[in-house]
Amino acid sequence: MGLTLTEKLIGQSLADGQMIRGQRIGIRAHQTLSHDVNGVMSYLVLEAMGLTRVKVELAVHYIDHNMIQADYKNSDDHRFLQDITAKLGVICSRPGSGICHQLHLEHWGVPGKTLIGADSHTVAAGGIGMFSVGVGGFDGAMTMAGEPLYLTMPKIVNVRLTGKLPPFVSAKNIILELLRRVSIQGGVGKVFEYTGPGIATLNVAERSTITNMGQETGATTSVFPSDENTRRWMRAYHREEQWVPLQADSDAVYDEVIEIDLSQLEPLIALPHQPDRVVPVREAAGVKVDQIMLGSCTNTSLQDVLSIAHMLGGKPIHRDVDAGLYPATRTVVRESIARGAHDKILSAGVRIFEPVCGGCNGCGFAPQSNGVSLRTTPRNFVGRSGTASDRVYLVAPETAAASALTGVITDPRDLKLTPFTYEMPEVFVDDRDMFQPPAAEPENIVIRRGPNLRPIPPMPALPDVTGGEVLVKVGDDITTDHICPAGALYLPIRSNIPELAKHAFKVVDDTFADRAAKAGGGLIVGGSNYGQGSSREQAVMVPRYLGVKAVIARSFARLHLANLVNWGLLPLTFVNGDDFDKISQGDWLTLDTEVLTEGQQIIVRNETKAVAIAVSSPLCQADLDSIKAGGRLNQVKAKNQNSQTHNAADTASG
Amino acid sequence: MGLTLTEKLIGQSLADGQMIRGQRIGIRAHQTLSHDVNGVMSYLVLEAMGLTRVKVELAVHYIDHNMIQADYKNSDDHRFLQDITAKLGVICSRPGSGICHQLHLEHWGVPGKTLIGADSHTVAAGGIGMFSVGVGGFDGAMTMAGEPLYLTMPKIVNVRLTGKLPPFVSAKNIILELLRRVSIQGGVGKVFEYTGPGIATLNVAERSTITNMGQETGATTSVFPSDENTRRWMRAYHREEQWVPLQADSDAVYDEVIEIDLSQLEPLIALPHQPDRVVPVREAAGVKVDQIMLGSCTNTSLQDVLSIAHMLGGKPIHRDVDAGLYPATRTVVRESIARGAHDKILSAGVRIFEPVCGGCNGCGFAPQSNGVSLRTTPRNFVGRSGTASDRVYLVAPETAAASALTGVITDPRDLKLTPFTYEMPEVFVDDRDMFQPPAAEPENIVIRRGPNLRPIPPMPALPDVTGGEVLVKVGDDITTDHICPAGALYLPIRSNIPELAKHAFKVVDDTFADRAAKAGGGLIVGGSNYGQGSSREQAVMVPRYLGVKAVIARSFARLHLANLVNWGLLPLTFVNGDDFDKISQGDWLTLDTEVLTEGQQIIVRNETKAVAIAVSSPLCQADLDSIKAGGRLNQVKAKNQNSQTHNAADTASG
Repeated sequence: MGLTLTEKLIGQSLADGQMIRGQRIGIRAHQTLSHDVNGVMSYLVLEAMGLTRVKVELAVHYIDHNMIQADYKNSDDHRFLQDITAKLGVICSRPGSGICHQLHLEHWGVPGKTLIGADSHTVAAGGIGMFSVGVGGFDGAMTMAGEPLYLTMPKIVNVRLTGKLPPFVSAKNIILELLRRVSIQGGVGKVFEYTGPGIATLNVAERSTITNMGQETGATTSVFPSDENTRRWMRAYHREEQWVPLQADSDAVYDEVIEIDLSQLEPLIALPHQPDRVVPVREAAGVKVDQIMLGSCTNTSLQDVLSIAHMLGGKPIHRDVDAGLYPATRTVVRESIARGAHDKILSAGVRIFEPVCGGCNGCGFAPQSNGVSLRTTPRNFVGRSGTASDRVYLVAPETAAASALTGVITDPRDLKLTPFTYEMPEVFVDDRDMFQPPAAEPENIVIRRGPNLRPIPPMPALPDVTGGEVLVKVGDDITTDHICPAGALYLPIRSNIPELAKHAFKVVDDTFADRAAKAGGGLIVGGSNYGQGSSREQAVMVPRYLGVKAVIARSFARLHLANLVNWGLLPLTFVNGDDFDKISQGDWLTLDTEVLTEGQQIIVRNETKAVAIAVSSPLCQADLDSIKAGGRLNQVKAKNQNSQTHNAADTASG
Repeated sequence: MGLTLTEKLIGQSLADGQMIRGQRIGIRAHQTLSHDVNGVMSYLVLEAMGLTRVKVELAVHYIDHNMIQADYKNSDDHRFLQDITAKLGVICSRPGSGICHQLHLEHWGVPGKTLIGADSHTVAAGGIGMFSVGVGGFDGAMTMAGEPLYLTMPKIVNVRLTGKLPPFVSAKNIILELLRRVSIQGGVGKVFEYTGPGIATLNVAERSTITNMGQETGATTSVFPSDENTRRWMRAYHREEQWVPLQADSDAVYDEVIEIDLSQLEPLIALPHQPDRVVPVREAAGVKVDQIMLGSCTNTSLQDVLSIAHMLGGKPIHRDVDAGLYPATRTVVRESIARGAHDKILSAGVRIFEPVCGGCNGCGFAPQSNGVSLRTTPRNFVGRSGTASDRVYLVAPETAAASALTGVITDPRDLKLTPFTYEMPEVFVDDRDMFQPPAAEPENIVIRRGPNLRPIPPMPALPDVTGGEVLVKVGDDITTDHICPAGALYLPIRSNIPELAKHAFKVVDDTFADRAAKAGGGLIVGGSNYGQGSSREQAVMVPRYLGVKAVIARSFARLHLANLVNWGLLPLTFVNGDDFDKISQGDWLTLDTEVLTEGQQIIVRNETKAVAIAVSSPLCQADLDSIKAGGRLNQVKAKNQNSQTHNAADTASG
């Protein structure tokens, strides 16, 4: 029986377990990616572990998220990261050189390798034929330390593409179509593996738009084969020699097949506030637009920027629209400048920012109050833009550009413009000076630390019997942005947990932090897909710091579940989903965690309503043991301490 | 007897009084300039006055300061400003199109006209032969309403330039030399009028670098003649027909003459934390640099950007230096792109931001803790960068670029590069779409207001006898940044006085706001040049809101004095400067303000130390009357109310 491409890739990095669907496997990264938001925590963990050199083939760090330097905090972090990466053997991309996922595709990604990155959109690298997984800062640290990453062997879905995209329908619409069909939970426990004749019509940038935003389905990852288009991409970036061909065997067996005929697609739009609320643009046409944001790791490749310039053609955008572009990388900027696209976009009245994540996660360009903002980004979670009352729609660049001209949501086909055709450059400008190599003499590096870099707070072990008030009860699809707000006001304090904790659940209920502190902790009740979205582990650390003992939900997002284990906050799921209705906010619950073992049910007693509710944990025994120890960090610390004690004992007796 | 150029210019806008040195005169603006920081207050005042159309030849509004949109606040302000300018007949520059002073020089400034702008660096327009004065938001409003601006007829200083700048010594060094000679108080009550054969060697951009930063001497303004170079500038910007020649009569009489031989100048640097702490760059050479900021209204003309590109030449900047460029205007960006300069600067590793004020007043690119930052900006007041522990040095672009390459403060001559030569383009790209004309049907404009736009708080009249605790005693050269912090964290709340008041004097003493609130107000004691720096009137409104009744200082900065009158906070000066030492912070003072009249002394009793101190007010009787009424806003309101009452009475009796 033949293998899927996914199986071949996992096989190349398998460190533990067997590739049987649903079973726990450990994979080891060839490459790692980190960035300034999650990376600070990763490097604090590595320091706590005493690591002196990363243990992977290639580790690259990017400084692209916290770029608003309104005071010393972000600047201090940049320095800390530049210093510690130099010391640990990590290549560091200078602040503001580009968005990590696109830079990695341009300069470092290699087909066949496994990339583990401390960012949920790490999965973009599937576009170049890598097996790529996004994790939180803690797992990022473990991966850099050479430890395997544990995950459930996913089901493999064959997404078979046929046909060719029509004019004004670009790659973003393919992933919007997938989201429309499978929903934001439709990828949980799965890998989307792209096959079929349609893939030959897509270059690596287009493929990575799809794999990148595949994250929004909850999938483990997505992957494209490595073919002639992949080779062409790598040649254009001066590294053809790293290319290898890769594809599934012809008799590979998939768990599911999804067929998408590209020629049948039309411009699509995701309505506020979830990426799967997808309808044809024409169904939303005419809505007055306040702001257009062009940018993000999903959608500002050179092709996207040139397409925008073509659509605008130097015509001034609508008077009532404020528009801004965050190009993906410095290389994109330089190529766009060389091709006259920058001038066209500027003269149309679009603001061009530096190539960073920017407004995508609320670090700049927040819309006005109640503002309708059309964005080429992957996510439209409420408040993520930085404006709590935002109304964000997700679109492809062509729809964004058309709407910038008209001032209302507009199907780009309706402007009757000449279609844009893109021929990828044979060669991109050789632009690698932005990468700072590790120090030749790491022992001489003095690491500079700002006053905002606070040590990780203590994480006490889980008590055997626990209980408390339900501090908040939330519905389905609660994101990490709900739990711990994103944006320029909060990201600079993300390594300062006591300070950050003051803003927990702010988007949902800004009394949460005060109530949790007053009650000395408690419990959280959630719906399904709790913790979706960004891989921000602070969304666990913060409730944990506030004394929350457990989250009882219908189901959990994969990345968040891993973070719960790392930082010791107990996830429980309802055995009977309807029991969700038997708990109200403010109820007092008790449970006996001592008896909790893998696959076993335990009873949560709702003392307020006098009902018993059966729950279990979605975790394996090893992970449950981590939770009981107060999280994996405690375990790693204890292990290190033990080995030091042994060493000391050895020395004493020796 | 011949006239100076200054007298000719003032004569063309004189509305009240006579041009006798030291006497009070009223001038009327031909043109006004406003921007988003001070403009919100201006337009709130105009609304309070019931104005329906501005009463000047030309009013232009710019959105260039509060560009970090971390939430709805700045975006809401942009919308409010776009709407209200359209309604009132003001041209509005789209957000992010460029820095007001440079855009005004490029597209609107006309030799011979008087420009009054609600920003201290409005004086940049002296470079094109305008009489230009910076005011606060209130006076900006009055000016737009057609009211005369009152000021003291200044002394006129002939700054005679001879010779020609040597290689690597650009215009910034001329104004640094002037600051070195006259200090940050040396221009108070004066106009610097440039003459001599040296001026023919300077184009309008170079001249405006000098007039712009002339503000740092405390001068009323600075001015250059309008000559062939001015004509060339206006031709290049497609408006030669607006040019007129202007110069002083050959027998003009000046109060003072300063000679500067340009050929003798060398690269200069202002050390932290005042713009007049000027020494040759070589005296500071070798200091390790953490950050370089290229930008601001003073120093990012096309010439500056091309010079930087020439110096860097695509060579990577030093690893330990973080560098960023804010170009002055969109036109500069487009011309720099067309000339390959952008590519060279980017590939050197310099971050290029959008053309806005940015880091100059702490709205982005703040340095790290204790960071040494070399900046081409006009000011290095402590904390202005956004980082309280900053160490900002002011330099010309060439020194900044050289230091970016070496990582230490470096005299650009020491790199032995080919000197840069600049030939101003015959014609700049015609780039005027960024300006939004006023509405054709202003009555149809609906003004959008965000929740952060708060009404101006009540400003009660000054009681006849007053007294209170000295809440804070500060030294010389206290800036408006000290009184009311600048930067991205505070500027978005500048139209929300109750919120902003919480941060009063934060840089000096962060207990001030609490203590003032608890004490129900009090008094402030300051040294000389109190209130220098930016024209921010919130530096009066905030202490006023907190109940402060009077500021007793050795002397006041001109702009701040005007703001004190507008918002009703009593300025008093020591008759005997040494009495400054007879007051300590925490002392209880009383004074009888009823007897206060122009030029008269009154006694302040220090009840704590049991001493009497003679003070007087630097204000004329009209301004004292305004203070007693609680500020000019109260007077204007009362006047409007009276006229409405009269109208109502007329109607009733008619």
